[in-house]
Amino acid sequence: VAEAWANSIDLHLDVAGTRVRNGLESALREAIRTGRLHAGTRLPPSRALAADLGVARNTVAEAYGQLVAEGWLAARTGAGTWVTRDPLPARQPPVTPVPETAPPRYDLRPGVPDLSAFPRREWLAAARAALGAAPDHVMGYPDPRGLPQLRTALAAYLARTRGVSAAPGRIVVCSGFGHGLALLCRLLRARGGDTIAVEGYGHRSHRRLAESHGLRASPVRVDGGGAVPAELGTAAAALLTPAHQFPLGVTLRPQRRRDVVTWASDTGGLVIEDDYDGEFRYDRQPVGAMQSLAPEHVVHAGTASKSLAPGLRLGWLVLPDRLVDEVVAVMEAFPSSLDQLTLAAFLTSGGYDRQVRHARLSYRRRRDRLLATLHRRAPKVRVTGIAAGLHALLELPGDRTEDDLIARAAGHGLAIDGLASYTAPGQRHAPALVIGYARPPDHAFTTALARLCTVLK
Amino acid sequence: VAEAWANSIDLHLDVAGTRVRNGLESALREAIRTGRLHAGTRLPPSRALAADLGVARNTVAEAYGQLVAEGWLAARTGAGTWVTRDPLPARQPPVTPVPETAPPRYDLRPGVPDLSAFPRREWLAAARAALGAAPDHVMGYPDPRGLPQLRTALAAYLARTRGVSAAPGRIVVCSGFGHGLALLCRLLRARGGDTIAVEGYGHRSHRRLAESHGLRASPVRVDGGGAVPAELGTAAAALLTPAHQFPLGVTLRPQRRRDVVTWASDTGGLVIEDDYDGEFRYDRQPVGAMQSLAPEHVVHAGTASKSLAPGLRLGWLVLPDRLVDEVVAVMEAFPSSLDQLTLAAFLTSGGYDRQVRHARLSYRRRRDRLLATLHRRAPKVRVTGIAAGLHALLELPGDRTEDDLIARAAGHGLAIDGLASYTAPGQRHAPALVIGYARPPDHAFTTALARLCTVLK
Repeated sequence: VAEAWANSIDLHLDVAGTRVRNGLESALREAIRTGRLHAGTRLPPSRALAADLGVARNTVAEAYGQLVAEGWLAARTGAGTWVTRDPLPARQPPVTPVPETAPPRYDLRPGVPDLSAFPRREWLAAARAALGAAPDHVMGYPDPRGLPQLRTALAAYLARTRGVSAAPGRIVVCSGFGHGLALLCRLLRARGGDTIAVEGYGHRSHRRLAESHGLRASPVRVDGGGAVPAELGTAAAALLTPAHQFPLGVTLRPQRRRDVVTWASDTGGLVIEDDYDGEFRYDRQPVGAMQSLAPEHVVHAGTASKSLAPGLRLGWLVLPDRLVDEVVAVMEAFPSSLDQLTLAAFLTSGGYDRQVRHARLSYRRRRDRLLATLHRRAPKVRVTGIAAGLHALLELPGDRTEDDLIARAAGHGLAIDGLASYTAPGQRHAPALVIGYARPPDHAFTTALARLCTVLK
Repeated sequence: VAEAWANSIDLHLDVAGTRVRNGLESALREAIRTGRLHAGTRLPPSRALAADLGVARNTVAEAYGQLVAEGWLAARTGAGTWVTRDPLPARQPPVTPVPETAPPRYDLRPGVPDLSAFPRREWLAAARAALGAAPDHVMGYPDPRGLPQLRTALAAYLARTRGVSAAPGRIVVCSGFGHGLALLCRLLRARGGDTIAVEGYGHRSHRRLAESHGLRASPVRVDGGGAVPAELGTAAAALLTPAHQFPLGVTLRPQRRRDVVTWASDTGGLVIEDDYDGEFRYDRQPVGAMQSLAPEHVVHAGTASKSLAPGLRLGWLVLPDRLVDEVVAVMEAFPSSLDQLTLAAFLTSGGYDRQVRHARLSYRRRRDRLLATLHRRAPKVRVTGIAAGLHALLELPGDRTEDDLIARAAGHGLAIDGLASYTAPGQRHAPALVIGYARPPDHAFTTALARLCTVLK
C-alpha cells in the first residue's frame, strides 16, 4: 500500500505553519482538484504520512476523515484510503481581484445624476440614527411591501411634493424603477395582457424588459404635447413619462392627461406613470402627478436613482388598491431593510428635501450654463426639453449626423448619446443629441461642456 | 359665470398661511377629488376669488394655471375655468402610519438567527469605511453580477471557509437565497426544464417558488444519510442541503455526495447546494461545500441571512461558468451597492469572521442548554440534527401530536413549528418539532426554553 508515497516531497504538500491539519486538507483538495492526484490513487497510511510530515498521526487521520466526509476520498478498514473522484478540468482559477471598469473621463450621457453629490455623510448619519432607534425585529425577514416606516414616509412625501394620492397601503417598495416595471410586466402577462404601449422615444431597456416578459412593446407617437393618447389602442398598459417626456423633454398636455385617464377607465388599461425626475422642475412649479387624477387606473412609479443615486437601488410603486397583493405575489427580491430604514429617516428628517433642493439648484445652474454656452459657441443647435429634469435635447443642424458627433466626442474623451438610441423601431426622428448635463461632477462640467462645443462646432 | 361662488366660505377653502398658492391648489384638488366640486362646475373668475380670499389676483391665476396643467381644470378665454374630471370614489385615505406587526413574545421557530446579535455598530463602521474609500462611480448603476469588490472578497472567503471553488467571475450577488433560487428556476424553465427535485423535508416556500415558475417540485426521500440520490431521476435540477439537511439536520453521506455529482454529470442535471448554515458546525470541522467536487455541475448558494441578518437581503450564487451570463440575463433586481460595499469591507476586515465565531459560540451554548434541559425535563423527547446549524429536531413520544403542542405553546406566548409544515406532500413523518434555538435574544432564551419544557411535559 502507498508505495508511491515514500515521503512528503513526493506529495508536493506544503503543510508548514501552525494550522497543519487545515493546510494538509487544502493541499490534498488542491492536488485532487487539479488532477495531480487522480481517481483511484491510494494515499499513504496516516501513520506513514504523519511520520513523513513530522506531525501527529491524529492530524493526518482527521484530515483524511474530513475529506472522506466531503467526498474527495474513500476509506475502508483494511483497504486504506484512496482518491474517489475523477479529476476535473484542471482550470481552478486563483482568486484574483476583479478589475473595476472605470467610467469615461467626461460623460454627458443622460440617466445618471451627479454621483459626487450623493450625500454620503448625511446618508450614513441617517442610517446610524435609524438603526439606533429600530427594534431588533426590523432586521428580520422584511414586509414584502416594504418597511411600514418607509411606506408611511413616502406617502407623506409624495402627497406633499407630487400630489400623489398615496396611502401607505398602496405603496410597494422595490429595487429601482426597472424592478418595478418588471413586476408590472409579469402581472400584466399573468392577466393575459399581450401589449404594452410605450412612448416612441424612451429607454430601449424598458422595451426589452417588456418583451422579455412576453409583452409586445407598441410605440406611440410623441409630439410637442407629449404622447398621443389616440394611439394607445387596446394595449393592456401604457408606460408614460407625463411630467417630462424622456428624452424629448416635453410635458404631457392637460387635455391629453385627461384623455389618457379616460382611455384607462374606458378600456381597463393600466397607466404606468414613470415619474423619474418629477422633483426637478426649474421654470415653474412641478406638474403634479397624473396618478392623482385616477388612482385606481394609474401606477405612479418613482425612484431614488435620480434624487440620490442609482446604487441605492430603491424605488417605489403607488398602486391601485386592487393590484397591491398581486404585485407582492410576483416579487422575488426585496431591498435591504437597512436602506429602507435609512431612506425613511432621511425623508422624515427633511434630509431628502434638502438634498433635492440642493441638487435642483445645482442642475438648474448647469442647464443655464449649457444654454448660454451653446447659444454662444454652437448657435445653430436648438436646445429643447429644458424646463425640467437632468437632460436636454440638442437638435442638430441638417448637415450633422449623430454617429459622426458621437465618434468625434469619443475622440475627445467625451461620452454622449444620440436620439437614435432612444427611438423605438418605426419612429422617425431628426438628428439630435440627448445631453445629460447633471451627470459630471462639478469639477468636470466645464471641460465636458467645452468639449461638447468643440465637437458641435 | 360662477354665480355659485359668492365668496370663499362657499368654497370651503382654507388657504390661510404664507404658502397661499400651494394651499389654494391643494384645497381645490382635494375638493375635486372628493367630489365636492364635480365635473363641469365653473370656478369664479380669478379676480373675484382673489378678492374673496384677500390674496393677489396673480396667485389665483397661477393656481388655476397649475391645475389646468395637471388636468383638474380646463380653461378657455371667454368661457372661464371649470372642473374637468368626474369625481372619483370619495375614498382618499389620510396618511396614517402603518402599524408594525410585533413578533411573538417568545419565538423558537427556525430560519431566523438572533437578530439582537446583529453587529449594528460594526456594520455601520464598515459602511463608513467602505463608502469613504469608494470612488463616486460606485454609486452609479451597479455591475449586475455584483460589485467587483464584493465578489472578490466572497471568493476568498468561500474558498477559505467552505472549500468552494469560487473565482469572482463565477459569483453573482443576489437579494438572499430566495432571489437566487427564483433566478435559477427561471433559467431552468427557459431551458425547457419541467421538474426540480427537492428534499422531502424542506421549506414550503422553496417548493412554491419553483411551482410559481412552472416547475414541478418532486420530493426526494430523506433518511439518516441525507437525500437519496437514486430518486433524483430525470429532474432538471436538484435542490439540496448537503451540509446540514433542513430541517432534519443530517449530513449528506460521502458516498451520496459522489452519487449526486455522478447523477449531475450523467444527466446534465444542475445541483443547487443550499448552504444556508454552513458556517455553523459545532462538533467537528465544517463539511466542505459539495460544489468543489464538481464546480461545473453544482451551484453553491449562500446567504448573509443566518450569519448576519435576513433584513440585509444579501446572498450569492457560485455558478458553473457557462451559467453566469444566463443568470444575469434574467435578473431584474439588484442589491444596494452600499450594502455590497459594506459586506465586502466586513469580509475583508475580518469583521465577518469575528461575527460568525461569536455567533457560533453563542448558538453552541444554547444548543447545549437545550439538550441538557430537555434531557432533564422532557426525557422522552429525542433530539437530533444538532451537530450544526441553528435548529434541532425534537422527535415526540407517540402520544403527542404536533398540533396539540403548537396550540399549547401559543397559549404560553411561545411560537413553535411542527415538522408537518416542512414536509412535502406524500412524505411520511413521525411527529416532531423543529426548534430554532438561535432565534430568541439572549435575555429571552431561558424563558422560551422553560416554556417549551412546560409544553412538552
